[in-house]
Amino acid sequence: MEVIKPYKRGCGYSYALGAFPTFELLRKRPACAIGVFVHSTFPEREKVESLCAEHGIPVWNNDKAIARLSDKENVFVIGVFRTFTDRLNPEVPHLMLVNPSNMGNMGTILRSCLAFGIHDVAVIAPGVDWMNPKVVRASMGAVFSLRIALYDSFEEYVSFASGKGREYFPFMLNGGAEVSPAECFKPDLYTLIFGNEATGLPAEYAEVGTVIKIPQSEEVDSLNLTIAVGIGLFCFRKQ
Amino acid sequence: MEVIKPYKRGCGYSYALGAFPTFELLRKRPACAIGVFVHSTFPEREKVESLCAEHGIPVWNNDKAIARLSDKENVFVIGVFRTFTDRLNPEVPHLMLVNPSNMGNMGTILRSCLAFGIHDVAVIAPGVDWMNPKVVRASMGAVFSLRIALYDSFEEYVSFASGKGREYFPFMLNGGAEVSPAECFKPDLYTLIFGNEATGLPAEYAEVGTVIKIPQSEEVDSLNLTIAVGIGLFCFRKQ
Repeated sequence: MEVIKPYKRGCGYSYALGAFPTFELLRKRPACAIGVFVHSTFPEREKVESLCAEHGIPVWNNDKAIARLSDKENVFVIGVFRTFTDRLNPEVPHLMLVNPSNMGNMGTILRSCLAFGIHDVAVIAPGVDWMNPKVVRASMGAVFSLRIALYDSFEEYVSFASGKGREYFPFMLNGGAEVSPAECFKPDLYTLIFGNEATGLPAEYAEVGTVIKIPQSEEVDSLNLTIAVGIGLFCFRKQ
Repeated sequence: MEVIKPYKRGCGYSYALGAFPTFELLRKRPACAIGVFVHSTFPEREKVESLCAEHGIPVWNNDKAIARLSDKENVFVIGVFRTFTDRLNPEVPHLMLVNPSNMGNMGTILRSCLAFGIHDVAVIAPGVDWMNPKVVRASMGAVFSLRIALYDSFEEYVSFASGKGREYFPFMLNGGAEVSPAECFKPDLYTLIFGNEATGLPAEYAEVGTVIKIPQSEEVDSLNLTIAVGIGLFCFRKQ
């Protein structure tokens, strides 16, 4: 079966555009791989074929399908995969994103999570669709190494994740007490919480834990969300 | 004079798309402002008119020009400005970008600079054109608060910036000694150096100073450049 329709949320399959994300798919989620489109000019065909052969994944030669699916990106290999859902591991630290809205940002944030040892990401709805090929590509395939789950509300998440001494750290610009992520006490089990790109976290999140503020000049309105998350993850990483 | 041609590198003028970047232009670089296009539906017209009146800057009503210049972005005000060049201040810390190639990244990095108190940015050619409206917008107008200068080579930069005990910190993934930016000794006068998005810094940069490596998992190839720069700036900021 060669799936060549454009991606739509909920359609059941998606695409890893480009070599790096496709190799991540084949290595980390081979059971989700449906097949791989390889362009006639792609130089690493043998590597793809060998990885696919290991797991019985078909390799398709179809330059037209690649052109159609690649969405102006310059790609020569596309992994097709069944979309997947995960349960978070309740016994490890989490990142929480409340209403993330930008696909490129979401991908960059997922890549930062993997870089700093966070494998579990909670999204509070509504949030961007992380199975979208744009997110998969911006994450450089990190999405295949993470567990990501959607919750309707913070309360729904808490009823799943709390109970073992988990501490919550909402990152806010105006939250009363101001603790820098560099100086903050880091417990073993925690959730770092970040709001939407344009609106930040709703005020009530100041009540759920220790409010963290990244010290920044008054010359800017705020940091870009991906930068704030990167700094938070870096400061809280296990040393 | 109503300039309504699309931006081209070297054309002598550029555009601040949107309210936030336009207000930054009017507040930080009023002498460079040529005029402001205001859409008939823009709600903050009076604020623009009052700022422009202070500096004798014309305000133009021209919905068509805004539609033509806005490049699919949803903007209702556009500041037109003369492009400018600066000399860096040799007596303060600098950020150096070697061959930056992505306009969105460049803008995000400039915004991070301003957030963490760095006002001087050296770019080693070839590098992205930071007067492009896409960079101006991604920077949220931070470009108007910074001094940015282009150098043909690292040596040309050094002959300008050194001589007062400046120390250099190339950020590299493979550079021999590995010092985390969190633990590194921070001198008063320094330059943080970052390479191109895809290729990083050329190996010879390992010789110019103390190589810094941001500790990161082997599960990722590298951090996104904007995240690496954000963490570097955060760790070196004046506390």
